[in-house]
Amino acid sequence: MIPEEISFVQCGLGPIGLELVQQAFDRENLRLVGAVDISPEFTGQDVGAILPEQKLTGIPVTANLKETLKETRPRVLVHATVSSFRKAYPQLLEAVQTGSAVVSTCEELSYPWQASPDLSDSLDRAAKYHNVAVLGTGVNPGFLMDALVLTLTGVSKKVETIAVHRIIDASKRRLSFQEKIGVGLDIATFKERVKGKTLGHKGFHESIHMVADGLGWRLDRVTQRIEPVVAETSFRSPACSIKKGDVIGLRQEGCGYSRKERKIVLKFEAYLNAENPCDRIRLEGTPPLVLEIPGGVPGDTATASIVLNAIPRILMCPPGLITMRDLPLIHWRA
Amino acid sequence: MIPEEISFVQCGLGPIGLELVQQAFDRENLRLVGAVDISPEFTGQDVGAILPEQKLTGIPVTANLKETLKETRPRVLVHATVSSFRKAYPQLLEAVQTGSAVVSTCEELSYPWQASPDLSDSLDRAAKYHNVAVLGTGVNPGFLMDALVLTLTGVSKKVETIAVHRIIDASKRRLSFQEKIGVGLDIATFKERVKGKTLGHKGFHESIHMVADGLGWRLDRVTQRIEPVVAETSFRSPACSIKKGDVIGLRQEGCGYSRKERKIVLKFEAYLNAENPCDRIRLEGTPPLVLEIPGGVPGDTATASIVLNAIPRILMCPPGLITMRDLPLIHWRA
Repeated sequence: MIPEEISFVQCGLGPIGLELVQQAFDRENLRLVGAVDISPEFTGQDVGAILPEQKLTGIPVTANLKETLKETRPRVLVHATVSSFRKAYPQLLEAVQTGSAVVSTCEELSYPWQASPDLSDSLDRAAKYHNVAVLGTGVNPGFLMDALVLTLTGVSKKVETIAVHRIIDASKRRLSFQEKIGVGLDIATFKERVKGKTLGHKGFHESIHMVADGLGWRLDRVTQRIEPVVAETSFRSPACSIKKGDVIGLRQEGCGYSRKERKIVLKFEAYLNAENPCDRIRLEGTPPLVLEIPGGVPGDTATASIVLNAIPRILMCPPGLITMRDLPLIHWRA
Repeated sequence: MIPEEISFVQCGLGPIGLELVQQAFDRENLRLVGAVDISPEFTGQDVGAILPEQKLTGIPVTANLKETLKETRPRVLVHATVSSFRKAYPQLLEAVQTGSAVVSTCEELSYPWQASPDLSDSLDRAAKYHNVAVLGTGVNPGFLMDALVLTLTGVSKKVETIAVHRIIDASKRRLSFQEKIGVGLDIATFKERVKGKTLGHKGFHESIHMVADGLGWRLDRVTQRIEPVVAETSFRSPACSIKKGDVIGLRQEGCGYSRKERKIVLKFEAYLNAENPCDRIRLEGTPPLVLEIPGGVPGDTATASIVLNAIPRILMCPPGLITMRDLPLIHWRA
């Protein structure tokens, strides 16, 4: 049975972490018992004082996850720190070892078995030993380009190829998102940062492998490329002034190939003033099917929502390192 | 573990049943071992000879489900006979008692707990005792107006109301579907048949309660009404000639109310030459979300597909009477 009130510690107080705390306040079944972040300027502050809509909680931010977990013994760690599974691993293990289930926005955790089999296996064993479940999810990866795609194939007689297209008008998104897609950079810097892997959407590999494994497709190659979108004229955005030729965002494409055939194509376009923002899934097969979400699912708030909506499910499911593919459907609950 | 090849008996050889057998032939993991139907003209015939694309199987149709189950001991009974849970119950129980799991298109089985708690409880106990799972599913109920709706709420911070709209161009559907929506009737006969509950889409109550229970909404009233759509001019359809004023299909609406507020509205429109066929889910809340499937999911083939796609899942899940809400996501697999 799930307790009426589920205690949780929030680890990571970036934009998503703060959104998670904010949304959790509106949920009767969730009770924040601790907050952790490594930024020195947060340490000791009331976590509620950091929120956009300030609300004092009596819960000071600490920099020590282990201590906080030991003191508060939460049912769940809500984790929103890094994209890299390897970097997140010690934090995840800490939670598991104190008996907390974990829901994390760590992109590489959404389907970690393919890229990090050893680390996955190790975390899976620890989670099983301590009888808790660990899940990585979010709007993307975790929903739009993987779980929702698999869901749509549920009514298919045969699936030949899959294309998913997400178009985001970045001018409507937070500044740190705009930075993540290179807004304001010149092309040379953009290309450098693509090489350094500090730009762009994270999670294509995970989404592609989750879908391919689900459908029983053996992929022999997964590719990815990122191109800048540049301004055709100069203009002023709320955050900065853009000169003609400056980067205003990116186009990113990931492909999963099987015997030279493009079986899965994921496209992510995010730039200032992109027209007709939309999420679109196209299945070629029998029958051909198109699913559209006009306007698109909003990124940050939806990621926080699906993380919180997943909490009751991971408290009911068998222990271990699980993915969205293994869980009963996650839905909102009043 | 799921066996590599799953044996099944097909019970019910109406249009959906035949589609199920036909689709199963294309799936390597499924092996038909028996076929049952009460129509005397089928008895003794090779089931493959009844299919639109004839293909001899060596499996004769029998009229006796119990005998066939005992002789063939299938892993799964695929059941497509009636909409009424009460009428299907003896057949379902027969399967459970011979140790077969069941996937059924019986509309009332898709979420039976609300309308038939005693019968549900009884079937649930039998299924648990015999260590098999029983599931009712299909494209609708089972997917479009319930499971897919719940899935979409997974990225919601708050859901206020839900509207689902399915528009079907009935001229593209089989004759027995056209009969089910009253094509060719005069209005008086249409109204009589609505009273006698022999017309219209089945499953609104089940979809509404599955969604409401999932979201934690307490409904105090569920209503339903069916109106005819009549021909504005005379014309000839492939099946019959339509006079001005004849029924060419229907509009059906189901509502779930909580404290006088319409929380869930399901609309089903199906008539000859309906324009812009589409499935559309609209969530009012935070954020508001719209999901569209232009053209709509085709009914019969998709129902057969989701039933077959569900088979591996129900062989893995805990025993009992389960619903789409409880299962890990159902997807196609090569």
